[in-house]
Amino acid sequence: MNVQEQTKRQAQAAKAAATLLATASLEQRNGALQAMAVELSTHEDAILAANAADIEAARAEGIGEGLIDRLMLNPERLAGCKQALAELVAAPDVLGEVVCGRVITAGIHMKEVRVPLGVVGMIYEARPNVTIDAASIAIKTGNAILLRGGKIAQRSNDALTKALVAALAAVDLPLDAIQNLDATSRESGTALMQMHGLVDVLIPRGGAGLIQTVVENSKVPVIETGTGNCHVYLHESADPAMAHSIVMNAKLQRPSVCNAAESLLLDRSVAQQLLPQIASDLAAAGVTLVCDPEALAIAQAAGVADEYLRAATEEDWGTEYLDMLISIKILDGVQQAIEHINTYGSLHSEAIVTSDFTTAQTFTGGVDAAAVYVNASTRFTDGGVFGLGAEIGISTQKLHARGPMGLTALTSTKFILEGTGQVR
Amino acid sequence: MNVQEQTKRQAQAAKAAATLLATASLEQRNGALQAMAVELSTHEDAILAANAADIEAARAEGIGEGLIDRLMLNPERLAGCKQALAELVAAPDVLGEVVCGRVITAGIHMKEVRVPLGVVGMIYEARPNVTIDAASIAIKTGNAILLRGGKIAQRSNDALTKALVAALAAVDLPLDAIQNLDATSRESGTALMQMHGLVDVLIPRGGAGLIQTVVENSKVPVIETGTGNCHVYLHESADPAMAHSIVMNAKLQRPSVCNAAESLLLDRSVAQQLLPQIASDLAAAGVTLVCDPEALAIAQAAGVADEYLRAATEEDWGTEYLDMLISIKILDGVQQAIEHINTYGSLHSEAIVTSDFTTAQTFTGGVDAAAVYVNASTRFTDGGVFGLGAEIGISTQKLHARGPMGLTALTSTKFILEGTGQVR
Repeated sequence: MNVQEQTKRQAQAAKAAATLLATASLEQRNGALQAMAVELSTHEDAILAANAADIEAARAEGIGEGLIDRLMLNPERLAGCKQALAELVAAPDVLGEVVCGRVITAGIHMKEVRVPLGVVGMIYEARPNVTIDAASIAIKTGNAILLRGGKIAQRSNDALTKALVAALAAVDLPLDAIQNLDATSRESGTALMQMHGLVDVLIPRGGAGLIQTVVENSKVPVIETGTGNCHVYLHESADPAMAHSIVMNAKLQRPSVCNAAESLLLDRSVAQQLLPQIASDLAAAGVTLVCDPEALAIAQAAGVADEYLRAATEEDWGTEYLDMLISIKILDGVQQAIEHINTYGSLHSEAIVTSDFTTAQTFTGGVDAAAVYVNASTRFTDGGVFGLGAEIGISTQKLHARGPMGLTALTSTKFILEGTGQVR
Repeated sequence: MNVQEQTKRQAQAAKAAATLLATASLEQRNGALQAMAVELSTHEDAILAANAADIEAARAEGIGEGLIDRLMLNPERLAGCKQALAELVAAPDVLGEVVCGRVITAGIHMKEVRVPLGVVGMIYEARPNVTIDAASIAIKTGNAILLRGGKIAQRSNDALTKALVAALAAVDLPLDAIQNLDATSRESGTALMQMHGLVDVLIPRGGAGLIQTVVENSKVPVIETGTGNCHVYLHESADPAMAHSIVMNAKLQRPSVCNAAESLLLDRSVAQQLLPQIASDLAAAGVTLVCDPEALAIAQAAGVADEYLRAATEEDWGTEYLDMLISIKILDGVQQAIEHINTYGSLHSEAIVTSDFTTAQTFTGGVDAAAVYVNASTRFTDGGVFGLGAEIGISTQKLHARGPMGLTALTSTKFILEGTGQVR
């Protein structure tokens, strides 16, 4: 059987499993999560051995230590996953919620209730912990899931899936509800994108290239996640100390994540006042400043060494570095800032620092992004921080779910209408 | 300029207009709808003349009278559109609604507010009234819209768009918020499907072929609408009179629409009791019965003439006839009915006739569709009937919107976070 056929069979089996899961009780679904924690312990030696084999193979291929770190599982990380499972058990059920209801024409009783999406497809990269997170959130919300992780994590994901499926068996849920696709060929990912009618949503998690590929090729509805070309804009009314603190935090606290700042915008009227200190301190921390001509001149005058300076190209304004670089542009006022962000941003997280009330309103109203901050760092964009519970990703599209996606992002609704023989 | 470039320019202009519309007041948006009614009167002669030219050209091409009727505008139909505009003005605003809100980490005030989607693309067929409906709903919800109607309605749509744009001008809203694409070539539709990043959602309205094409080719997120392969299932506990009445209504009241029944399922234990009368009456009304072998035998025994009988093929179970045909299958019990519907249905509207409480629960829980009926006709699925107000289509997918789509289907949300300098 070729990969295309194999993937289709797996998707058909997932759909059949989803039909059964849709009517599984909360006790059964929570029971599966509790069993997952038990099975992760039972299978821990096998999981860690598989992960060690993945890491050895990755190192032999010359893969960098950053990626190796993302790939690595250890007893502490597995304990963290088990803790997350316990929290998910405690989270309230979102299924069955009556979203709205009324009596309509001729006395028909209508209610709109929350139901599972059906079959969720996840396409992701190195991190094997996503396998546990995604599968557990899917089961909590009554969905079947097809997992297509990174090729370098295939052994780890196989071992993890074995443990997760054992948990399904322990509570008599259908085993096909969690399936790991063959990640050793590109074809299984491509095949998954063709499964319109069998797979209800595809969630890509990873770099911009992966997400772009899925968006361009998928016939299955996609929720775009993750890419964060986030800006901090310093309005002329910004408190200088607050401006400095927010820029440093948004850029430096964890530069490799999607809600880190990639671009600094400043009003011309305060650029000479604010930028020298910020530029010096960013460069001192090892950040390369990718500047428009005016910002470049100010940074040079502030004594920033040439090795930390570079002239910005048009491409830079649209680039998510995920690294120790920041683009810097000087402009005039909140309208120009909004236009720049709406042109080059990725609809993720955007911040303004201002002490002017109307300017804050203009910015939050005009910027088109999942999360818009006034006087706070972009780094807060996170499902847990927002109080949404378990997060399956951060949506940067506007359809279905926007921003951090909690449990309801994996649900749909259904209208149920009860009559006594009404006809039209 | 080729069609691809032209479409891209139109999409860019729509995006710029959407940014302005996103902060337009309710008074401005409602003012635009009121001005639309005025301008439709002012432009009425030009609109009717353009429509007459479209109809003449369509007749010359030999297009059937059913399609001609859908294409036709007249003073009564335009008056109906103006009435719908008045109702839309009266409908409450959905923008700005705070969906949820709380104080999060370190005292940041978070709220999730309802915002426009941005740019909506509509691809549709003959009906020019969709031009008015879609454009007015888009403006009410703060969205720009790109309209790609049927080639045979191009003159009508151009004339209508002229009136609608005049209404935007009257209230100082950006004229590019409503644009009619060139429908004389296929390319504009294809180009629209490539406008990822400029167009936020594409809604195809029309036949299954059109919808399939858009789903398969669009890089822009799509909301599938319309296809309705709807079933009525008669459980062994069904009240015979109610069963008869619901089947006749669901099939015959308006066979050409998406919520009409296309398939009848009956329990074997009551097939001999219920089917003879239903089969005779359907055939007497001119409906061809597309039967499995058992149903065929019962219909023949009931005296249904051969010209109204045909043996069902596998393909029939998945076919939306939109015509005077119904497929008929005999099976055993609610689980088989659910399996059949979930295999062949189009997730639109499904009905059971039963007097058994548990069976009703099993059916509504197990059937995967936008609307599931107990003891009522499938014909009620409609945004107006469901109390959702203006309807832009009926979604048959599970992401973003399901079932009749009201005004909120054209919105997204945005998290706004207000701090006092918080960093992480």
